[in-house]
Amino acid sequence: MNQKKKVSAEVIKRLPRYYRYLGDLKKNGVVRISSKALAQSMKVTASQIRQDFNCFGMFGQQGYGYNVEALQTVIGEILGINSGHKTIIIGAGYLGHALANYKSFEKRGFKLIGIFDIDKEVIGQKINNVDIMPMDQIEQFVKLHKPDIAIITVPKSAANEVVDVLIKCKIKGVLNFTYTDIAVPDGIAIENVHPSDALMTLSYKIKTKKEGKGNEV
Amino acid sequence: MNQKKKVSAEVIKRLPRYYRYLGDLKKNGVVRISSKALAQSMKVTASQIRQDFNCFGMFGQQGYGYNVEALQTVIGEILGINSGHKTIIIGAGYLGHALANYKSFEKRGFKLIGIFDIDKEVIGQKINNVDIMPMDQIEQFVKLHKPDIAIITVPKSAANEVVDVLIKCKIKGVLNFTYTDIAVPDGIAIENVHPSDALMTLSYKIKTKKEGKGNEV
Repeated sequence: MNQKKKVSAEVIKRLPRYYRYLGDLKKNGVVRISSKALAQSMKVTASQIRQDFNCFGMFGQQGYGYNVEALQTVIGEILGINSGHKTIIIGAGYLGHALANYKSFEKRGFKLIGIFDIDKEVIGQKINNVDIMPMDQIEQFVKLHKPDIAIITVPKSAANEVVDVLIKCKIKGVLNFTYTDIAVPDGIAIENVHPSDALMTLSYKIKTKKEGKGNEV
Repeated sequence: MNQKKKVSAEVIKRLPRYYRYLGDLKKNGVVRISSKALAQSMKVTASQIRQDFNCFGMFGQQGYGYNVEALQTVIGEILGINSGHKTIIIGAGYLGHALANYKSFEKRGFKLIGIFDIDKEVIGQKINNVDIMPMDQIEQFVKLHKPDIAIITVPKSAANEVVDVLIKCKIKGVLNFTYTDIAVPDGIAIENVHPSDALMTLSYKIKTKKEGKGNEV
């Protein structure tokens, strides 16, 4: 891949969405698309799309546009998802169940290989054909099967204890759904999903619409 | 409230996190805090905190810092959550169950008043003491009870149909958990939560850590 310039953080933030739209286009049999048509469906400007794609060396051909499949492959490569990531889920409550059944995770190269919980009622069961194992087996399991990513859905009060175990067994990345920010050492990547923060941002947007102010946040 | 300047989109994005941290401090009995101490616990710079808070007219007192409760109240007011928002959840699957049980929603002034699904097996049941009703009663319910916010957790294929109904009954805001971006008219606020996008961003962070590049996205 021909990465012409350093890709900025702002561009990186937009990549998952590009990846998703290109996947939908591919599924619908679209072979190529112009920056204008892609911009219209994604509600961004064609100029932003051209600038973003230029950043990682993808230049659309005049009168032809972008090859959808090639573009998605390049974006997947930048995101590091083409090689696949082994994933575990910690916490088999409703949210853990929902995520274990998420079809889009596997489609994007994230393979669920284990689920962990403390509840004896659910240990031994399976979700989406993956075993639910006791929490105290995490360390042994991670050392043996080497998952890259742990998705944490345990209650806030249990979050730090779980993370300490994960740090100890050198997990590479943590997707944190607990309602708290988690501190990890420099070598571990972390991404937080906080539905309550999203709800507060939505509240702000509702308020500004009522006041007749702009919407973009 | 004394809003000195126009609050920028970047500042607004940080408000839910400030609100959350201040709530934790309040819970732990902290009455006042310096920008330096808050910065340390939030892993941002004290200068950014002072700038952000200045934006909405909150100036810490020299040698005293910020009053935690007053600051949280002001941020809550800017976010529009102090007055409370009536909320409904559409889709009573695992994710719907998880969100209906989210304690932090109610704590932040979002009151769940109804849940809707198409599955006859769950209609008539309750989650967290709130009724699950049939999907075809949404319109009637919204007109009668006037919720501000609909949280959508239906499958991607059902998303547009649900949104059309919500637009028709003039919902104010939509929190979208379906794995697709939803088009709404100008008067309706929307906020998307896409766990798969978060997982792809995490993958990028893992990849750049391995390559010894920076981490911040």
